[in-house]
Amino acid sequence: MCQLLGMNCATPTDVTFSFTGFAARGGLTDHHADGFGVAFFEDKACRLFIDNQSAGTSPVADLIKRYPIKSKNVISHIRKATQGTVLLENCHPFMRELWGRHWIFAHNGDLKSFLPFLSGVYQPVGDTDSELAFCTLMQGLRKRFPGSQPPLNELCHALADITREITLHGVFNYLLCNGQALFAHCSTHLYYLVRQWPFSTAHLIDADLSIDFAQVTTPDDRVAVIATQPLTDNETWTRFAPGELIMFEDGRPTMTLTVPIPPEVQAKNAANTACT
Amino acid sequence: MCQLLGMNCATPTDVTFSFTGFAARGGLTDHHADGFGVAFFEDKACRLFIDNQSAGTSPVADLIKRYPIKSKNVISHIRKATQGTVLLENCHPFMRELWGRHWIFAHNGDLKSFLPFLSGVYQPVGDTDSELAFCTLMQGLRKRFPGSQPPLNELCHALADITREITLHGVFNYLLCNGQALFAHCSTHLYYLVRQWPFSTAHLIDADLSIDFAQVTTPDDRVAVIATQPLTDNETWTRFAPGELIMFEDGRPTMTLTVPIPPEVQAKNAANTACT
Repeated sequence: MCQLLGMNCATPTDVTFSFTGFAARGGLTDHHADGFGVAFFEDKACRLFIDNQSAGTSPVADLIKRYPIKSKNVISHIRKATQGTVLLENCHPFMRELWGRHWIFAHNGDLKSFLPFLSGVYQPVGDTDSELAFCTLMQGLRKRFPGSQPPLNELCHALADITREITLHGVFNYLLCNGQALFAHCSTHLYYLVRQWPFSTAHLIDADLSIDFAQVTTPDDRVAVIATQPLTDNETWTRFAPGELIMFEDGRPTMTLTVPIPPEVQAKNAANTACT
Repeated sequence: MCQLLGMNCATPTDVTFSFTGFAARGGLTDHHADGFGVAFFEDKACRLFIDNQSAGTSPVADLIKRYPIKSKNVISHIRKATQGTVLLENCHPFMRELWGRHWIFAHNGDLKSFLPFLSGVYQPVGDTDSELAFCTLMQGLRKRFPGSQPPLNELCHALADITREITLHGVFNYLLCNGQALFAHCSTHLYYLVRQWPFSTAHLIDADLSIDFAQVTTPDDRVAVIATQPLTDNETWTRFAPGELIMFEDGRPTMTLTVPIPPEVQAKNAANTACT
């Protein structure tokens, strides 16, 4: 199974602490060695780093651990290929433009018999079901709101609507962001926590590294971290229920919708640990 | 004036030598310190690194100088802002998807009173005339070939056609690539050279660095390097004529078209050294 990491913050924050633990799972403490990627938003634009080397050994991952890029929205992904070959074009996260903003998407899961009709405005570059799902989400949003972006709560409802059709095809845990809000959907495994004042010390599971956030934060800071599995062993992570789509803004959940998953799909999902 | 660097090769080649000289112009040997970017294609996909720090001091540029990413198509840009603020969203190169391929674009020049009609399929994220021109090129190609990509020579003719309208608005030196061919258009300043067997030694203008390519190449290698100003002082660079659009494939020019520039535009362009 691949793993996802997302960060949504009230103020620009660097992700080096969480990314250090997360990147260790790319071949060092776990077996997700078929590429990685991370996207950092700065307002509407973003920096996207992808590599088909593992996050544990890639010089690009090393740069990210050493270079504190501050961002309010970050999405990262480490890959264990199940569908699609180990090519750069299959590395998450994926990027497209919609309504004059960059959108970033990463997926953990496995979609079967998923053959959506694409009009051609968005076409996958690689051969993963994940990028196909992203193109379907982008096309669906554009079709519902052809002129310009609607308010975020309307956007979240539209997303739930498009997500429902895709979840019928299998495991569809994803993170999606446009630089304003981060949307996280859970089919099977996804956790989050909110760090806010008064901050305390966190200790990584995957590296012997602690940080006392009280020393490096202000009362204005607030950070939501979303991950496939908890990254720290001394903080309380909230588990998403299957079907939950949560919108994060300014470092906290601001809307939670439930996308119903049919029981037969849920039973199949529980047995599936694949990832594309 | 900003500067452009392109590389198109017969076999995957690393750009570290040329990039080292080019990056020095980002604040060290020249004043292009308002950001930089570089895109490396691997088949249909690409790695895009952008930074609003200067190429001379950015840790991202430092990574690229040290990490030999091999690619058949590279586009890089260093920026001296004249239109648009120094934000990440205004850093070249820009990326969009068309016909299931990534496309990369970088511009050197300055377009005046350029207000094209955009249908919404491609919208700029930042506020440069350059990204607006890129969206216009992408929209024009999609409109002419709505289903799928035509043969490259048809594509080149269509590009010349769309370019002609844009050049009426000012200086429009650009590099455009889809991972198969690299298209270079010159309004004012652009040079290229082809390095091929038997290779010899090249010496950078902007750094005291030489490389004997004969030691690191095979007879199958062939590399075209395209730049705003020559990068080496002991090789023969060919200057583009104003209006020339050259398609490079497998490390050499394979098609040259001339996009006529009206004399009054050419006179204005000659006096203009701005860059967006």
